[in-house]
Amino acid sequence: MTQPSTTILGLGAMGSAVAARLRETGYATTVWNRTAAKTEPHVQAGSNTAATVAEAVRAGELVFVVLLDHARVREHLEPVAADLKGRTVVNLVTTTPGQGRETAAWAAEHGIPYVDGAIMAVPSMIGDTSARLLYSGDQHAFNTVRPVLETLGTAEYAGEDPGVASLKDMALLSAMDLMLLGYVQAIAMMRTTGTSAADTAGEVEAWLAAMLPHGRELAAIVDGGTYDTGGQSVDFDRFGIRSLITASREQGVRADLLEPHQKLLEELAATGHGDSDWIRIIERLTIH
Amino acid sequence: MTQPSTTILGLGAMGSAVAARLRETGYATTVWNRTAAKTEPHVQAGSNTAATVAEAVRAGELVFVVLLDHARVREHLEPVAADLKGRTVVNLVTTTPGQGRETAAWAAEHGIPYVDGAIMAVPSMIGDTSARLLYSGDQHAFNTVRPVLETLGTAEYAGEDPGVASLKDMALLSAMDLMLLGYVQAIAMMRTTGTSAADTAGEVEAWLAAMLPHGRELAAIVDGGTYDTGGQSVDFDRFGIRSLITASREQGVRADLLEPHQKLLEELAATGHGDSDWIRIIERLTIH
Ligand SMILES: NC(=O)c1ccc[n+]([C@@H]2O[C@H](COP(=O)([O-])OP(=O)(O)OC[C@H]3O[C@@H](n4cnc5c(N)ncnc54)[C@H](OP(=O)(O)O)[C@@H]3O)[C@@H](O)[C@H]2O)c1
Ligand SMILES: NC(=O)c1ccc[n+]([C@@H]2O[C@H](COP(=O)([O-])OP(=O)(O)OC[C@H]3O[C@@H](n4cnc5c(N)ncnc54)[C@H](OP(=O)(O)O)[C@@H]3O)[C@@H](O)[C@H]2O)c1
Repeated sequence: MTQPSTTILGLGAMGSAVAARLRETGYATTVWNRTAAKTEPHVQAGSNTAATVAEAVRAGELVFVVLLDHARVREHLEPVAADLKGRTVVNLVTTTPGQGRETAAWAAEHGIPYVDGAIMAVPSMIGDTSARLLYSGDQHAFNTVRPVLETLGTAEYAGEDPGVASLKDMALLSAMDLMLLGYVQAIAMMRTTGTSAADTAGEVEAWLAAMLPHGRELAAIVDGGTYDTGGQSVDFDRFGIRSLITASREQGVRADLLEPHQKLLEELAATGHGDSDWIRIIERLTIH
Repeated sequence: MTQPSTTILGLGAMGSAVAARLRETGYATTVWNRTAAKTEPHVQAGSNTAATVAEAVRAGELVFVVLLDHARVREHLEPVAADLKGRTVVNLVTTTPGQGRETAAWAAEHGIPYVDGAIMAVPSMIGDTSARLLYSGDQHAFNTVRPVLETLGTAEYAGEDPGVASLKDMALLSAMDLMLLGYVQAIAMMRTTGTSAADTAGEVEAWLAAMLPHGRELAAIVDGGTYDTGGQSVDFDRFGIRSLITASREQGVRADLLEPHQKLLEELAATGHGDSDWIRIIERLTIH
């Protein structure tokens, strides 16, 4: 499959960007969208269109799914399982790991090579190497279509478990979310004294950039398998987090974002781990 | 006060580092510690010692307090208020903003020039410019003793409000705490698929470094005074955070660290702000 024909199901913001990029890099493209009017600019630019999903998937050796969500994926693929047999499906819809695994199991049942994708980019980045796309599932299928995937952005294979591309996406987004909440908490605290959000954000940015490498030290402890490190203990950290919560409330700022950390530390203390390294909180998160 | 005599109350890890640095840069130092044995190495190295707190403070024009906590500060300073009159007190003890303001008010009552400090460094960094020390309160007093403070590390004046050095310390520590919890969440999610903490931390570090500048964009919205930005809405974000929480739980990882974000978004949606920019959550944090 050096130059496979492609089908794109869904022409929203992301599907349109994917279709345009494939077309511009020389792939034959067939597009389908619920609201048919959205196919027009693509047809004018050289894409084929199809009246039904079945017709669309029969036109492509490689089928990209860029619908809204998991329910829409199942709803549109299930009726055309027979038409998809032997074609490669790349699902770019944002799903949870479990949803990705579910679609992969369904595809395997119907003899459909399946790759689950996760897009860590916005539509305007598609086609640029700064667009990072994670893929997981059938490695043979991934390798076969890799040259096509590489036209969309940096293509990263995350593993055979079809859920792992989504999982990695969600793990990185979770880390980003908590970091941004750090900005929110600091800005909320400082603006009580008239400090602008911009000034606080500038300070936070410089500070976090300097503190980023600490993550690796924490990771080394987790991998090391012992929380008996002599480093910052649960009991010490309980004192520290209590100060942060008190400081926030004194300023009239709710400490909701900081409370789960305290709760996890209290759980550790209550189960006899006050002397452990504070990073042991990760064991409270994992349901063994 | 070009070369004021100094007193250091408290010779724990931090107090010892402060006393040593002052002595080594040529200041006359008098030390006091509850456990007297800890004064010995300092006396051998050239410091004076004092049998009582009162005697110690009378020996110094500039008094550094480096005791364990706020309660210890009040307990040791109150009986010697008369001895402190006219001397400058620099309180390096970690306190909440409210505690700093309380000590400042007490000092003002007794005619004691008072500077409240917050040390963003560990003892081994004292004396290096990488040690960042925040100060707030009496600006005249700060300016007078600034050359001495600069021997300890980078001396930053944060404002007349004596609580603001602590507040800034706590705001930056809160941001760091949430960022480190981002690592914890991502590592917990990824290790369910056998990915080492080190591998996840490496990925998170690169990702967060690239995402850090987003904090400034959020700040611009907060300062801008309107949440009607057309950017990522509360309703969109509710969908996103729900996916993160589901992904975490599917992998057997508690989502406690992510839940407050969801709760704040639900509060906004329930009060008719589903179309607002998601950063409006900061208004839920602030108790107006
Ligand atoms: N946009 C981004 O920045 C971004 C980034 C990463 C991942 N993604 C993911 O990419 C996927 C598509 O996102 P998008 O930004 O393209 O969304 P979008 O602009 O809202 O487009 C949604 C697409 O789904 C279709 N659709 C919705 N409901 C449908 C239904 N009931 N039956 C058939 N088709 C339906 C829409 O068709 P109509 O035109 O007929 O409404 C449209 O093609 C999502 O899973 C999203 O999470 C997007
Ligand atoms: N170490 C750091 O990395 C660091 C960083 C930033 C800020 N700080 C702040 O600096 C301050 C001192 O910290 P540290 O690391 O030096 O702590 P430390 O090593 O535990 O020393 C505590 C000091 O407080 C004294 N103390 C404790 N209870 C007392 C009592 N009831 N009466 C009289 N003295 C008492 C101790 O005297 P004895 O020797 O008699 O026990 C000792 O001098 C704290 O507020 C801390 O938060 C420390």
